[in-house]
Amino acid sequence: MYDTIIVGGGPAGVSAGVYLASRGKKTLILEKEQIGGLLSKVSTITHYTGIVENETGLTFAKRLENQVLSAGVLVKYENVVELDLKSEIKTIKTEKETYKAKKVILANGTTPRKLNIKGEIELDKKGIGLNALKDGEKYKNKNIYVVGGADGAIKEAIYLSQFAKNLTIIHFEKTLGCISEFKEKIEKIPNIKVKTLTRLNAVYGTDCVEKLELLSLEDNSITTIEDKGCGVFVYAGSTPNTSLYTDLELDENGFIKTNQKMETSLKNVYAAGDIISKQVRQCATAVSEGAIAGINAAQ
Amino acid sequence: MYDTIIVGGGPAGVSAGVYLASRGKKTLILEKEQIGGLLSKVSTITHYTGIVENETGLTFAKRLENQVLSAGVLVKYENVVELDLKSEIKTIKTEKETYKAKKVILANGTTPRKLNIKGEIELDKKGIGLNALKDGEKYKNKNIYVVGGADGAIKEAIYLSQFAKNLTIIHFEKTLGCISEFKEKIEKIPNIKVKTLTRLNAVYGTDCVEKLELLSLEDNSITTIEDKGCGVFVYAGSTPNTSLYTDLELDENGFIKTNQKMETSLKNVYAAGDIISKQVRQCATAVSEGAIAGINAAQ
Repeated sequence: MYDTIIVGGGPAGVSAGVYLASRGKKTLILEKEQIGGLLSKVSTITHYTGIVENETGLTFAKRLENQVLSAGVLVKYENVVELDLKSEIKTIKTEKETYKAKKVILANGTTPRKLNIKGEIELDKKGIGLNALKDGEKYKNKNIYVVGGADGAIKEAIYLSQFAKNLTIIHFEKTLGCISEFKEKIEKIPNIKVKTLTRLNAVYGTDCVEKLELLSLEDNSITTIEDKGCGVFVYAGSTPNTSLYTDLELDENGFIKTNQKMETSLKNVYAAGDIISKQVRQCATAVSEGAIAGINAAQ
Repeated sequence: MYDTIIVGGGPAGVSAGVYLASRGKKTLILEKEQIGGLLSKVSTITHYTGIVENETGLTFAKRLENQVLSAGVLVKYENVVELDLKSEIKTIKTEKETYKAKKVILANGTTPRKLNIKGEIELDKKGIGLNALKDGEKYKNKNIYVVGGADGAIKEAIYLSQFAKNLTIIHFEKTLGCISEFKEKIEKIPNIKVKTLTRLNAVYGTDCVEKLELLSLEDNSITTIEDKGCGVFVYAGSTPNTSLYTDLELDENGFIKTNQKMETSLKNVYAAGDIISKQVRQCATAVSEGAIAGINAAQ
């Protein structure tokens, strides 16, 4: 029996775990993949107060892992498949085991959205569905396509431009939706080109992407690009991982509703990080919500 | 004319500045002493997600300074003496100059409380009113007294015990009010002794503290301790630096009231960090509030 089980080991879960352990609570983090969560996969950590120079998602995640383990939090790499959050004693089943706790903190974030286009599944990891930090260098001197126009997309485009022969940003809106810091940066990088009002419509190929189809939203015309061996990196937003939380109050987009103490609609169930309904989605807010959830769960 | 002036360069002010600069806003931080604020003076940074190993207040503050300057925020080391926050264009006067901005973020935190006891002012920096990180080593093999029982006090007591011959924690309540992590640590440190239900009543001496007077809250008896050259470190809470903010809505303890966007009761005036009315006072919450204030002020 644990005092608290935290689902998800991203910045919110780690922060909650560190605070719970410091208050003497027996704490378990269930993480399906890697401490650091989605942030462990970004090329650069930007704007979070206190980051070290040239911080990558991986160096940041490694530090988080050391911090949470040395705080005394138990971390198990297991995928949660079923939960009972309504009973006084909470039960969480993973593919391997069943765990019980007095309190639960849900911090299992979001999943990047797929484009749902032709060829996306067949060529996954073979030229599309790539990770900039892990796969970027493999596309050295090849053409790279980045799909998306928000901060996450443009940040990775800037990083990937160092490898790319030419890099094309494909965005469906009229203008990019990123911060001015990133806009100014891409204007100065000669091998970056921006295609707005455009959607990636399909990818074709066998062992790699050989051909792309672009749809113009101005005149609905289709352009085909032959570009064997190119890399396509998709940043098309993300959806909250709340499909198992049927007993909880969610907002209209599926994010968990919390109050200022990070309490959800169920007693002794807290939530923190990208999975909650909120205005500002940043590492800074996730860490703060984790701290608040942890401190309140420890009381 | 600045887009935004931030009063205070602690974690909240730095976080706000970094976000504002990333959004292309001309941003000025007015800091009366040192980037990092009160946190720059603590011996150890604990529990903030992403800290590096053996992080002191000073190493953390140095990283914050580099981060905010390289983000393009202008920092001026000046003390604010007068503000007009009600007008559409905000005016802030320091001892040196007058500045104007469209928006203001108030992030100038709190001031440590004095004990208001005999000898405290006369012996300030000569044996009382000391900074653990800066002054601790000067009291090597001397007796050290730490006044306070909350996390901040006990954290510094743990740090100072490495220098002290004997270290006495003096706390007015029946039990220490710190987290279990710190309680367990002090139990294992042989030269730390805890005196609860006790107040420091007076300090005497000329160039150093020579004598202490302790008041027992159990029987109102006074104990005098002759201890020439000892060091007294006081952590008796803090009060918000809001005396100049007469036009703002404050809570009953003088902290600034904000909504979820960190807006205050005045238009285009935001607040973040320890100066606001909130439940959890941690570096993590300050950084998050700064991010939220900065992002909203940039819109």
